[in-house]
Amino acid sequence: MAARRAGIADVAARAGVSVGTASKALNGRGSLREETRARVRAAAQELEFAPSTVARSLLTGRTFTVGIITTDSYGRFSIPIMRGAEDALGLGEMLAFLCDSRDDPIREQHHLRRLLERRVDGVIVAGRRTDARQPVGANLPVPVVYALAPSAGELDISVTSDERGAARLAVDHLVRTGRRRIAHITGPHSHSSSRERAAGATQALAAHGLELVGEPWFGSWSEAWGRFAVSQLLRTHPDVDGVFCGADVIARGATDALREAGASLPMQVGVVGVDNWGVVAEAARPPLTTVDLGLQEIGRRAGELLLEAIDGTPAPGIHIVPGHLVVRES
Amino acid sequence: MAARRAGIADVAARAGVSVGTASKALNGRGSLREETRARVRAAAQELEFAPSTVARSLLTGRTFTVGIITTDSYGRFSIPIMRGAEDALGLGEMLAFLCDSRDDPIREQHHLRRLLERRVDGVIVAGRRTDARQPVGANLPVPVVYALAPSAGELDISVTSDERGAARLAVDHLVRTGRRRIAHITGPHSHSSSRERAAGATQALAAHGLELVGEPWFGSWSEAWGRFAVSQLLRTHPDVDGVFCGADVIARGATDALREAGASLPMQVGVVGVDNWGVVAEAARPPLTTVDLGLQEIGRRAGELLLEAIDGTPAPGIHIVPGHLVVRES
Repeated sequence: MAARRAGIADVAARAGVSVGTASKALNGRGSLREETRARVRAAAQELEFAPSTVARSLLTGRTFTVGIITTDSYGRFSIPIMRGAEDALGLGEMLAFLCDSRDDPIREQHHLRRLLERRVDGVIVAGRRTDARQPVGANLPVPVVYALAPSAGELDISVTSDERGAARLAVDHLVRTGRRRIAHITGPHSHSSSRERAAGATQALAAHGLELVGEPWFGSWSEAWGRFAVSQLLRTHPDVDGVFCGADVIARGATDALREAGASLPMQVGVVGVDNWGVVAEAARPPLTTVDLGLQEIGRRAGELLLEAIDGTPAPGIHIVPGHLVVRES
Repeated sequence: MAARRAGIADVAARAGVSVGTASKALNGRGSLREETRARVRAAAQELEFAPSTVARSLLTGRTFTVGIITTDSYGRFSIPIMRGAEDALGLGEMLAFLCDSRDDPIREQHHLRRLLERRVDGVIVAGRRTDARQPVGANLPVPVVYALAPSAGELDISVTSDERGAARLAVDHLVRTGRRRIAHITGPHSHSSSRERAAGATQALAAHGLELVGEPWFGSWSEAWGRFAVSQLLRTHPDVDGVFCGADVIARGATDALREAGASLPMQVGVVGVDNWGVVAEAARPPLTTVDLGLQEIGRRAGELLLEAIDGTPAPGIHIVPGHLVVRES
């Protein structure tokens, strides 16, 4: 074990005051005679008193810890969000407890209770869908920031992705590269992301005086769906020259089906995905051009907003982080 | 804020003793008259004194927190390890601080210092390769358990995967399904996992009186390598009827190249991967039969071993967690 360091009790003893008085003197709170405060500070200096975090917590009432509750047991979404949050929180000297709720509301409440028992200074709740969710609790003693899945509570603080903007980035790229007959294949209609990206694609095409080729193809977030949808799309619209896919996994299935149908990519048909998920986007043939939703930046903003809320300046509302296009070869 | 709960100072005041005496009385340490101890306990009961974790820390000298330092910025390996560790630690009422070292030794040391400052009760260091690594520090004040990447320190506690066993599971499956001309395509020779899996495959084949078709193909952990290696393998050994791939991404590239060369899978050629990485294994055509290395179990064992070490019964050495075969259609 490391050599014993001076504690608050040693400082108190040297200054000839009680531990409570020493604590008040060092944290600047309470009413004390200035002479007493000075004597305690001198004692602290003489003993090279450097409060441990535990002691600092007792002095300031803060623990310099936050909780991150993720609902994303797979990790695809939570890892970049956590990394961004860690960046922001690290600058504030905070450490983060990680709890995985595995999409189970009972686990979520259990983790929340444990975090509050530990007197965390705040909580980030990270989702994996952009659908609004119920708040994690009411009248909580510490601030909460929702990342990716915004809270339905009006006064809550949320950070999420720019779904319509992502569709606009994809469509603008397809139009810029000369595509005019653009189809849209995406995830389940029940997901807000699918509906918003489809609406964004329609809007963006309209701004260019264009319309989607056929209705949006709602299905699932899978390669198999991308392959199947393309095989059917080629029956009804063999002249399609651009496909905006709501996810990289769909885009990867779409490129496989197009290539296997004899289409030359990207000369004949351009494909754009959403996610910039390396293992999928980089291994596709050709590697996928895709919209990166900025998950790490969403985590960073969530961390910053939490620090601001802890410092007494909360910024309620839904904060939107813009994505960016990553151009590869599709 | 929640209603104020009784603190140790309130208990001390009610019992008419100092805070230090109250603390000694409640944690059972130090020499006190039995009458004093009883009076403090009665006061604690009357005030419904339930020590916060911070207070419990002061009473027991433990913080009931551990640190998990991951080197795996992508998250493919660390997420299941963390989830397993959380399961084990949660049963011990521990919460885990997550720190991502991003494979940077300076960040790793920085995180370690921050964790020790926070007086964590122990640390898990999770790697993403099975190559032995240098210990994170010497004479640390708390126990450390290494997960996946074992420590080179002889007295350290490590948990890792069964690399030769994984190869045996794959080869036995191929032989059981009638394959006799089995090739091996894997990652870089510089990685211990590649060398061990290749050695394990050779051993397992020998147990069946067989040899590898050609030398092991060392390359990279990528689909492109799997495709390229198969294209060359078919030139030199067109009669190959089984391919054991050192990773699912390699196996996915291999199945694509075999299918595109006109081979019927799995009738003509059987393919087995390693990792059971859903997004790759399930989307392959056909879905991959693969060896799951049990990363979550590795995390769980690491958590258990850390709790045992914290409780004073460390189990030094390298603990091997067996994998299991996941049979799909390849």
